[in-house]
Amino acid sequence: MKKRYMDHIAATPLDPQVYESMVPFFKEDFGNPQSLHFWGQKSNEALETARLQVAHLINAEPEEIFFTSSGSESNNLAVKGLADAKRKQGNHILVSTIEHQSVLNSAKKLEKMGFQVDYIPVDKYGLIDLPYLKGAIKDKTILVSVMLANSEVGTIEPIEEVVGICREKNVLVHTDAVAAVGSIGVDVKKLGVDALSLAGDQFYGPKGSAALYIKKGIRLVPLIEGGIQEGGRRAGAENIPAIVGLGKAAELAEKDMPKRMKKTMSVRDLLLKGLPEKIEHVVLTGHPDNRLPYHASFCVEFVEGESMLLNLDMLGIAVSSGSACTSKSLKASHVLIAMGLDHALAQSSLVFSLLDETSKEDIDYLLDVFPPVVERLRKMSPLYSQYLEEKQ
Amino acid sequence: MKKRYMDHIAATPLDPQVYESMVPFFKEDFGNPQSLHFWGQKSNEALETARLQVAHLINAEPEEIFFTSSGSESNNLAVKGLADAKRKQGNHILVSTIEHQSVLNSAKKLEKMGFQVDYIPVDKYGLIDLPYLKGAIKDKTILVSVMLANSEVGTIEPIEEVVGICREKNVLVHTDAVAAVGSIGVDVKKLGVDALSLAGDQFYGPKGSAALYIKKGIRLVPLIEGGIQEGGRRAGAENIPAIVGLGKAAELAEKDMPKRMKKTMSVRDLLLKGLPEKIEHVVLTGHPDNRLPYHASFCVEFVEGESMLLNLDMLGIAVSSGSACTSKSLKASHVLIAMGLDHALAQSSLVFSLLDETSKEDIDYLLDVFPPVVERLRKMSPLYSQYLEEKQ
Repeated sequence: MKKRYMDHIAATPLDPQVYESMVPFFKEDFGNPQSLHFWGQKSNEALETARLQVAHLINAEPEEIFFTSSGSESNNLAVKGLADAKRKQGNHILVSTIEHQSVLNSAKKLEKMGFQVDYIPVDKYGLIDLPYLKGAIKDKTILVSVMLANSEVGTIEPIEEVVGICREKNVLVHTDAVAAVGSIGVDVKKLGVDALSLAGDQFYGPKGSAALYIKKGIRLVPLIEGGIQEGGRRAGAENIPAIVGLGKAAELAEKDMPKRMKKTMSVRDLLLKGLPEKIEHVVLTGHPDNRLPYHASFCVEFVEGESMLLNLDMLGIAVSSGSACTSKSLKASHVLIAMGLDHALAQSSLVFSLLDETSKEDIDYLLDVFPPVVERLRKMSPLYSQYLEEKQ
Repeated sequence: MKKRYMDHIAATPLDPQVYESMVPFFKEDFGNPQSLHFWGQKSNEALETARLQVAHLINAEPEEIFFTSSGSESNNLAVKGLADAKRKQGNHILVSTIEHQSVLNSAKKLEKMGFQVDYIPVDKYGLIDLPYLKGAIKDKTILVSVMLANSEVGTIEPIEEVVGICREKNVLVHTDAVAAVGSIGVDVKKLGVDALSLAGDQFYGPKGSAALYIKKGIRLVPLIEGGIQEGGRRAGAENIPAIVGLGKAAELAEKDMPKRMKKTMSVRDLLLKGLPEKIEHVVLTGHPDNRLPYHASFCVEFVEGESMLLNLDMLGIAVSSGSACTSKSLKASHVLIAMGLDHALAQSSLVFSLLDETSKEDIDYLLDVFPPVVERLRKMSPLYSQYLEEKQ
């Protein structure tokens, strides 16, 4: 059976050109970039080329790019590191209720350390409440962290407006742009953020490759301390092959973005339109227009997300029912709950996140095989029986 | 010119078999192990196989192995995470003066957070002072961190004795075994440690691959928080290719260790014996016998380590003058200073750390080309002129 992967948010495959760029660094060019000899110099050149490529993708300066090992590490470094560095100015931070667990749990850790955290609510589309943010900023507020786009519902947040509100009051802004960078145009100067997280495995780059942008002049306490790598902000031997791959993926994303976006959106739109036509009681989650181009997410009422996922898997289609980082915890998504969905509906969530290569034929196949799956599962669903009874 | 790499401590090349084991995970098997579908399951199986392989190498249980991105991250996680988890029992920790910067700087961070840190001195061979340790443990002592082997001078520390002292007083022991694991037999049960750091790039595994062993039942506060990966102890999408490679490298190291050790030691011994015979005023650093099998380190009096390094580089030989993590900081090594060397002597340090493939012919070449380099550099050395004048 042909396998069709629609779980971009969990991981993208490695672009073959990215892989080719990494190969020499698994072979002859294995040096440590901190070494002063031939091998070290070669690795160091590759490191700085990749820094330029990543900087270019988001319109940053190369000295503002710090390589890390994952989006979660970048988020931990940003939230904890910026709060720690600004502690003398205040102890209040704000994060949205729909942040990734790596931001939320970093905020919880800060709470234990004496910081005060407030949570910015979102509307039914997952858009953050800007008036709430404006009213919640106090003299002691030092940091706001709001994601650029949510991987579970696809909604793109108004970060420029967040920065506008915060800049007036001298509050730093971090944005988790892991789901966005490489898939939509991201320009740190236009956004005006002080820090931004990105990860290679979200745009056809290697696993273990990620970065944190930190605006020039912004102080940050490191998370991993030790040697003088990454300007002292992130110790540990640099993962050169992964960094080289991240650089190449950034270069390709920048070059191909308009083409990729157009193609992915046109295929995705078939799904956004087609699924609610083919299946009753399907509710779109997230914003109808202002969403990631590869992203279509729904609640399929009366059926558990995980059952649908496993049934689709048997039909060769890989999707997810929420964030991969929490998929095995089997809890209802905190994102959907924050958007006002009840628990039963939130449990029926399904995320189709497409690859560049996902075709119209893949969507046709999905729209063909999925409705009978839902019908069968609903027949076994006590919630659905109850609904039918009440309807009569 | 033939290139000869003798900088094992900065990075080892990737074993071709290790690379081959990683390739499928750069291609078709790109899934996120947290995903519930086909791709996820395949990656998850690879993750758990690697965990078994790494556990086996150090005689641990698989559930005691937590993957990280570098030896430095493992050290930060262990020192900060164990101290934080034991804070209610006490706030005193002990580390040796010759630890890697990632342990020393973690200890300094803990000092800023209200912990009290004492530093265990070492003798002229770099062996830690066990009676000092015994006397320094107080009621409030919760953690001791002493490395298994030092990468700059090769000395292997008496960790079993450290554990013997600490266990009586209910103090946790972490050991940074990054320079040791894969090159000498390491058995966590025999050592009795509570936590142990290791890194793949020290035994022909991939960059960005490392792990922390934590004995069952020992609590630890995570450094990177977020999803439920690694049992909640280390969040972030798993770097599956690197982890698979680490597992394979562990398997190969275990299988080939006796052969590798014997061969490397015999070649290394030619250098330990030959260099002081060929060049006057050469002082071995570290312990003469109780040292890593791949390791030969010296001070070459009256000449700067960096000058020798750059001259050897031009002759195709890659060495280092200390730890790669601090090589660009140009300070005298804190390890050599702690061993009682004066600053001028410490600046003349050179570390030859051999690969399995380093041959007798490589050492013959080195012993042939290196003495004229030293002679030439000494002719330009004010320190050497001064020495000659004083001698007359």
